Amino acid sequence: MNSYNIVSLIRKKRDKETLSSDEIRFLVQQYSKDAMPDYQMSAFLMAAFLNGMDDGEAAALAREMLHSGTVMDLSDVPGIKVDKHSTGGVGDKTSLILAPVVAACGVPVPMISGRGLGHSGGTLDKLESIPGFNVNLNLKRYVEVLKRHKMVLIGQTEEIAPADKRMYALRDVTATVESIPLIAGSIMSKKLAEGIDALVLDVKFGSGAFMKTREEALQLAERLVAIGEEFGKRTIAYLTGMEQPLGHKIGNWLEVEESVECLKGGGPEDLLEVTHQLAGTMIYLGGGAGSIEEGVERSKSSVKDGSAMQKFRDIVQEQDGSIDYLDRPGDYPPASHSFDLKAESDGYVESMDAFAIGMAGVELGAGRMSKEDDIDPAAGIILKKKIGNHVHNGETIARCYTNKEETADRVRQMLKDAVTVGSTRPETPALITDMVTRDGVTPWSSS
Amino acid sequence: MNSYNIVSLIRKKRDKETLSSDEIRFLVQQYSKDAMPDYQMSAFLMAAFLNGMDDGEAAALAREMLHSGTVMDLSDVPGIKVDKHSTGGVGDKTSLILAPVVAACGVPVPMISGRGLGHSGGTLDKLESIPGFNVNLNLKRYVEVLKRHKMVLIGQTEEIAPADKRMYALRDVTATVESIPLIAGSIMSKKLAEGIDALVLDVKFGSGAFMKTREEALQLAERLVAIGEEFGKRTIAYLTGMEQPLGHKIGNWLEVEESVECLKGGGPEDLLEVTHQLAGTMIYLGGGAGSIEEGVERSKSSVKDGSAMQKFRDIVQEQDGSIDYLDRPGDYPPASHSFDLKAESDGYVESMDAFAIGMAGVELGAGRMSKEDDIDPAAGIILKKKIGNHVHNGETIARCYTNKEETADRVRQMLKDAVTVGSTRPETPALITDMVTRDGVTPWSSS
Repeated sequence: MNSYNIVSLIRKKRDKETLSSDEIRFLVQQYSKDAMPDYQMSAFLMAAFLNGMDDGEAAALAREMLHSGTVMDLSDVPGIKVDKHSTGGVGDKTSLILAPVVAACGVPVPMISGRGLGHSGGTLDKLESIPGFNVNLNLKRYVEVLKRHKMVLIGQTEEIAPADKRMYALRDVTATVESIPLIAGSIMSKKLAEGIDALVLDVKFGSGAFMKTREEALQLAERLVAIGEEFGKRTIAYLTGMEQPLGHKIGNWLEVEESVECLKGGGPEDLLEVTHQLAGTMIYLGGGAGSIEEGVERSKSSVKDGSAMQKFRDIVQEQDGSIDYLDRPGDYPPASHSFDLKAESDGYVESMDAFAIGMAGVELGAGRMSKEDDIDPAAGIILKKKIGNHVHNGETIARCYTNKEETADRVRQMLKDAVTVGSTRPETPALITDMVTRDGVTPWSSS
Repeated sequence: MNSYNIVSLIRKKRDKETLSSDEIRFLVQQYSKDAMPDYQMSAFLMAAFLNGMDDGEAAALAREMLHSGTVMDLSDVPGIKVDKHSTGGVGDKTSLILAPVVAACGVPVPMISGRGLGHSGGTLDKLESIPGFNVNLNLKRYVEVLKRHKMVLIGQTEEIAPADKRMYALRDVTATVESIPLIAGSIMSKKLAEGIDALVLDVKFGSGAFMKTREEALQLAERLVAIGEEFGKRTIAYLTGMEQPLGHKIGNWLEVEESVECLKGGGPEDLLEVTHQLAGTMIYLGGGAGSIEEGVERSKSSVKDGSAMQKFRDIVQEQDGSIDYLDRPGDYPPASHSFDLKAESDGYVESMDAFAIGMAGVELGAGRMSKEDDIDPAAGIILKKKIGNHVHNGETIARCYTNKEETADRVRQMLKDAVTVGSTRPETPALITDMVTRDGVTPWSSS
């Protein structure tokens, strides 16, 4: 490998120059072997944050973080392996539904997920609200379970992209998180390490998402697709709005419950629309359908014929979870306290600040503000109304569940501030707005 | 003291906002007590490098670095204490001459200097080429010697601006050195810690200086003057050109030798012009003259009447240095080898790249590339010709002295590349170009 001077490479990025793949490899490798201290990496990250990185640099960064650890070889698992990644939102439980749907359609889904932090939840935390569910499989079992069930749901292990893990932790404490190329490199290094052949991305925007505007989300989606395709993986991204929470339920067990409702043929429309679009695209990329549209039809059929729900039951059992509450959700141990946000006038729900609602959920115990915090599986919020719904004075807009009674007043005020009721019926917020592929951006009109 | 979130303050600078004095105090204090790790400070420094800091922020930074250590109280030393700081150049030995000149005129000069690094030399290294000279006085003796001789020449102690020392070391390895507000804060924190009442600055620009253009030098000079005045210290800066080395001699002992020539009434014109202007301004600020012009006259008189040279002898003796070689420079132990750069055609010296000549001096042993390197007091270069001088084919342009014979070929080539000889007589490069005071910038025409 070529050798470079670390300070010169920091200076290069500082001076808005473009680093070669070799130079980025050098930095990540030096950092991985502790030959580049954190204080140099953080200076580099701030320079990259402020001066940007082009597609080649972002791809090189993803590649080097990927190769800092184990890259799974799933070549002896039959089929085209497809995963989905979402940039995170409030009430976003699509992974829980689409993984069994896609697997039930014969396409293997090797899914390595994360935990929730701040306003947005994490798939691992939701899965762990199912008593006994074990997300800590080693990589050997990861392959075995995937072979047996065409799906597996685990957490990031120490072996997966360790350089990303360290760099992410450093970015978190140096105000260098919100950089599109750095985010893109971080996401793709982890996803590529799973051993996938193709990837579907859900890039969310709006108050409840990491990206606040469609434009930012589009930039990120384009970077992610560019990196995926650069690695020879078919990658399709959707931009989806997060002006209000997705579905009606927010909180770990509550989201599993709503996912099961969907898998059993019910569930809210917005959640179903996003989930089937993502699942249909995965089925298409996995060779289970000749077009995305056909994939969406297959996705819906797997719910109707019960195969998707059966797949979910199977994987929960395989990963040591109890299926008792999947069949009888009403038996799940409830939170000790519940209280309602009620309308104070007749009218229409005009807005629901998804970020604020997510933070209200954290207060109730459903999320964590720092990595060490415990979460409460039973805590959360059920939205009885969403944007565009009519409410009568005194009618419940949201019901809250918590084991921390002392949060009630504060949370009720947070929710009151987050929800506006007015006299004119607003338009339903945009859900899927664009599809991004290697061929470009296609504006989307929800069906 | 107010408490802030470190990451939020880094983010604020990242997002081009202005930090309050309280916020900067918080950062420097947290850093000083190890509550802010290097990796956060380096991210902050890179953000400050790229997004800048305004006058208020730079002054706050200087203030907090100043108060991280001892601020000398010289109130019981009679007189208005004045120092000079130069941003560093090649052949710049003005400190050695003007300190005894100003002290001889009755104005106390408490001078804390640095070492050389890279192409530019340091006053401490030059002083230490005088056998026995001790720059490591403690702060008690610093005051005693100043009282006795109206001057003292020491190095930065651990007590002086320790936060600056740590931050400078961090900047050095994170490519965040060349930032005007950071440089200004660093310089002023150290100078203000000396206990001065007024300050004269020599901000150099050109190939042999840190600032390459007059515009950059002007920006730095304005910052430095603004900070000094903010602290209630009269501060006057000059911009001086560094297109070619100052004077004829480069190297530690060689520069002492040339300084002694000046103190004895000889010496090259360019060096004398800059030195007397700086010294005259110090004498004026110190109350020893009614105007800068009168200060310059007093400065020249102190050379003519021998009082400045006597002051230099006195301080060398006081600080344990031998005066033998001041009186008989020819006895100084010579370097083992010397060789010449000779003209290869008739003509005029058109240019002399000061940076390259400085680096040639380093190769010969006169400087250091890293802080651990030893320097050779006898190594260096005597320029027999300077820009505008006529040379005959075969005539010596520069004579080099070294104890590392193996560098000869390489250095001769470096000097050959650094000096151009042509047929037309060039204009003499600008020396002093501007004076900067609290009242603004005055263009300068050298007399």
